Amino acid sequence: MHDITDIPGRPVPGADGPARPAIPRDLPDRLAGVAPSRLTETVGALVGVLQELAADVRLTDAEFRATLAFLTEVGHHADPRRQEWVLLADALGLSARIEALNHPRPAGATPNTGAGPFYRPDAPDLDNGATISRDGKGQPLAVTGRLRGLDGRPVADALVEVWQANACGAYENQEPDHQPEHNLRGRFRSDGRGRFAFRSVMPGGYALPSDGPVGRLMGDLGLCLERPAHIHLRVTAPGYERLTTHVFDRDDPAIGRDAIFGVRPELLAEFRQLPAAPDAPETPGDPAPGRALDLDLVLCPRTAEAPAPDTPSSSQTEETE
Amino acid sequence: MHDITDIPGRPVPGADGPARPAIPRDLPDRLAGVAPSRLTETVGALVGVLQELAADVRLTDAEFRATLAFLTEVGHHADPRRQEWVLLADALGLSARIEALNHPRPAGATPNTGAGPFYRPDAPDLDNGATISRDGKGQPLAVTGRLRGLDGRPVADALVEVWQANACGAYENQEPDHQPEHNLRGRFRSDGRGRFAFRSVMPGGYALPSDGPVGRLMGDLGLCLERPAHIHLRVTAPGYERLTTHVFDRDDPAIGRDAIFGVRPELLAEFRQLPAAPDAPETPGDPAPGRALDLDLVLCPRTAEAPAPDTPSSSQTEETE
Repeated sequence: MHDITDIPGRPVPGADGPARPAIPRDLPDRLAGVAPSRLTETVGALVGVLQELAADVRLTDAEFRATLAFLTEVGHHADPRRQEWVLLADALGLSARIEALNHPRPAGATPNTGAGPFYRPDAPDLDNGATISRDGKGQPLAVTGRLRGLDGRPVADALVEVWQANACGAYENQEPDHQPEHNLRGRFRSDGRGRFAFRSVMPGGYALPSDGPVGRLMGDLGLCLERPAHIHLRVTAPGYERLTTHVFDRDDPAIGRDAIFGVRPELLAEFRQLPAAPDAPETPGDPAPGRALDLDLVLCPRTAEAPAPDTPSSSQTEETE
Repeated sequence: MHDITDIPGRPVPGADGPARPAIPRDLPDRLAGVAPSRLTETVGALVGVLQELAADVRLTDAEFRATLAFLTEVGHHADPRRQEWVLLADALGLSARIEALNHPRPAGATPNTGAGPFYRPDAPDLDNGATISRDGKGQPLAVTGRLRGLDGRPVADALVEVWQANACGAYENQEPDHQPEHNLRGRFRSDGRGRFAFRSVMPGGYALPSDGPVGRLMGDLGLCLERPAHIHLRVTAPGYERLTTHVFDRDDPAIGRDAIFGVRPELLAEFRQLPAAPDAPETPGDPAPGRALDLDLVLCPRTAEAPAPDTPSSSQTEETE
């Protein structure tokens, strides 16, 4: 038996001996030794920037543990009815950034934004001028729109899908027991002059769910999860890139604080207060006078290089809105 | 009622009207408007680098969705018995990097590594020369160690905690029904010449759990989750920075592939094969001749600027090992 009480002087382990396999210092280094792929490229780049960031901010052990605990908590709040990861990506502005990255629009064209989780492809087809309010609740709103190409020419026979929250800031598919099916949704066709029109009610702003870890993070950052009032539109027309966007009430007090960074200066719209009809009796309890919204949406011609309209799966893009 | 069929020419929404609140373009921009804190600094920096990364690699919508789906899946694999997030951080090399960032060691000193999830602070105190193998299973191993400071002086009366997997690569707290309590764990004291010694069995290498999303990611990258055989040590001595480290079998075939990037050239050790005793009968089935491991560990003096030894909570650091 080796005498364990006899300890000879030994070199530092590893200082001698034959050549050994190289010891990769980090994941990017290790990935240099495997077959390259899109995945090795992107994951290697991600780890590289996270390493640099940790060094730059001098991330402490406690902060690293807190980060893992936060991710764990986000995971425990994600279930089929609540996608806390999408909420996190949205609230950090990453969803909006990646949408803009992949769907750039030239100056003069209406910006593209995410469709959000409340889009439904099966909204009813309606005639121009019809109302999308199926319960009649809320302040009346008349919307008129005009579709043009970048060259100013009207875009005729486009499919215009619209959807919005009700006056309380709730979409019909969020509360199927309280709103009629397809409330505040509709599909319209632009006419020969690129025009479309519908009646609705004034949408309400709302706040994203703040009772989970993302809400707590935002609160700790000094931010909130408000969304200013808006209406969603998706316009599909032959020869043009499909446009998915929102228009926002520029007078909403939360207009500068949209939780998911959907607001662009080009998407601010005036929901004009209409004067009361001169012959209307001033009866207390009467609905408030209506509002009107006039939209100009500018589409991009589809170029040979531009991607084809998204495949159906893209309509499943999950984004909080 | 506003006549919705009369659509006057309208400027692009937002092109007129009074001054509006500024629209922040992204989260770092928005955070510039709130009270600064460590959290706003780090989260803002994180989002900044993720935005740049997405643009650099031209992250597609589908890849972004796949990333969120992956995070969702990792979350669903994390439970009190399995910390898939820690496994992810470990397998990406981030845990090792942050450990090195926060516990740097000068040249000549033994590198610090993570303690891993199998550490127990309550291992039994044993005399030098005692065995930590409580079931006697495995190839005998005799370990001798010598503790020195950076100046070469022996470090006496240090607490030396050791723990390791058995020959099958399993820690006793991973399989409490199959190994005796505290098997392959012990606490020793260095003598006046900085020496310590114990008997054990040869540890086995092992693989981290690969049946979850992290294992699949690593497989897709062309990597595996092997860990070469190793022994953990933690050395606590007055006047020195606490050292937590592993020593690795430099002849383990996986020595260049440690899944969590714990291997450093300075931590390679020779587990020397001892010759069979000349008078031993060559009986088939006899245990193989033993091995011996001699260690030199070099501690750093604690300087005034250096952080105090980790508080008790740091022993809860979860890291896969």
